[in-house]
Amino acid sequence: MSDPFKQLHLAMNQFAAERDWDQFHSPKNLAMALTVEAAELQECFQWLTEAQSKDLDEAQLAAVRDEIADVQLYLIRLAGKLGVDIEQACWEKMEKNAKKYPAEQVKGSAKKYTHYENGDV
Amino acid sequence: MSDPFKQLHLAMNQFAAERDWDQFHSPKNLAMALTVEAAELQECFQWLTEAQSKDLDEAQLAAVRDEIADVQLYLIRLAGKLGVDIEQACWEKMEKNAKKYPAEQVKGSAKKYTHYENGDV
Amino acid sequence: MSDPFKQLHLAMNQFAAERDWDQFHSPKNLAMALTVEAAELQECFQWLTEAQSKDLDEAQLAAVRDEIADVQLYLIRLAGKLGVDIEQACWEKMEKNAKKYPAEQVKGSAKKYTHYENGDV
Amino acid sequence: MSDPFKQLHLAMNQFAAERDWDQFHSPKNLAMALTVEAAELQECFQWLTEAQSKDLDEAQLAAVRDEIADVQLYLIRLAGKLGVDIEQACWEKMEKNAKKYPAEQVKGSAKKYTHYENGDV
Repeated sequence: MSDPFKQLHLAMNQFAAERDWDQFHSPKNLAMALTVEAAELQECFQWLTEAQSKDLDEAQLAAVRDEIADVQLYLIRLAGKLGVDIEQACWEKMEKNAKKYPAEQVKGSAKKYTHYENGDV
Repeated sequence: MSDPFKQLHLAMNQFAAERDWDQFHSPKNLAMALTVEAAELQECFQWLTEAQSKDLDEAQLAAVRDEIADVQLYLIRLAGKLGVDIEQACWEKMEKNAKKYPAEQVKGSAKKYTHYENGDV
Repeated sequence: MSDPFKQLHLAMNQFAAERDWDQFHSPKNLAMALTVEAAELQECFQWLTEAQSKDLDEAQLAAVRDEIADVQLYLIRLAGKLGVDIEQACWEKMEKNAKKYPAEQVKGSAKKYTHYENGDV
Repeated sequence: MSDPFKQLHLAMNQFAAERDWDQFHSPKNLAMALTVEAAELQECFQWLTEAQSKDLDEAQLAAVRDEIADVQLYLIRLAGKLGVDIEQACWEKMEKNAKKYPAEQVKGSAKKYTHYENGDV
């Protein structure tokens, strides 16, 4: 039973190599492409209300699923180029987030952590 | 041996529940937050040349790692809210990409697939 | 009688020249920077409801004003590097939009124009 | 003697009113749409080298011109909804930028101002 991140990473490598696309895949360019896909994902929601965004029809969900995949694939490709272990990076970031946003302190508030660092409540 | 996507999904759910943050996490808002993080990731590269982007120093790599994690975490959270299986969506999208961009046809070219659909070479 | 676009364009040129920043201001990099600023602008709104976004307090409005300026400045700088007349481009695009979205046809609907091109209503 | 910002603002208002689109144009949604257009603009450059981005052919330039217009139009629409004077915001931001990035101090360096605030050189 393999790690999905690793399997997709290998598949992406082969896909790019077969098409001689490595020349275009500098980390800079991959970061640009990832942001473009993230924007295409959010475009699915831009005229929907928050309530409508929770209740997508089949066509909308299919479009969103494709864009989620596009973002994930570029993220794996970019991380691969830089030798970043995405899973490990996530667990480390979740630890940092737990310290930045202690549950008792931020419960129910969306304020950014700098707000709390300044002593405001 | 568990699926990393699932483990992170459960951890994110608990993190948000402990902070009473579900109220802010409509798919629309999560898609916005994800794009913001993708832009923070690309900000790490915006003044670097493509060559420099392949050769990050320790501090730059640490910053990039955190932003990669931020994007991944929001992607897992958004997919979770919509019931999208990210791994499955990725394999399906890779299949579609293989058809859109047949290796013999697109080798060495970064042109978008609509270019090929129009019969241009 | 001055054109604000032109005045800001000249001021931006001088600002960058004084700091020897032209080396970083390829159109590619400027487009990246502009997207980063657009994301910082939308970050001001990401956890607000649509209703709250219509009723910003003083601090929120000040932050939004700065980000609007950042987007505008990079847009002027990018257009200047490419010899694009922003004002003229806007009037031309509005003409195209009027044809893509005839008022009688799209009244009250946010569907994208390809939806109408396919004959759906 | 007209102000281009004001003329475009009025034209955009009429365009949206004729189509009954104000219902979709909360500042939150407009900020999302603006970021989506900024990403479409950067998509024009994502696989180009910095050098290629300075030397666009006719078709590439036409595409870029349309996307520059899309960003500008949404920026004017968003600013209009919030009562923000874009031109004034730009001049104020340029003043702040001149203080954040004194020419003698930052000449030739793309480091972010926080780097300088920390006393590094």
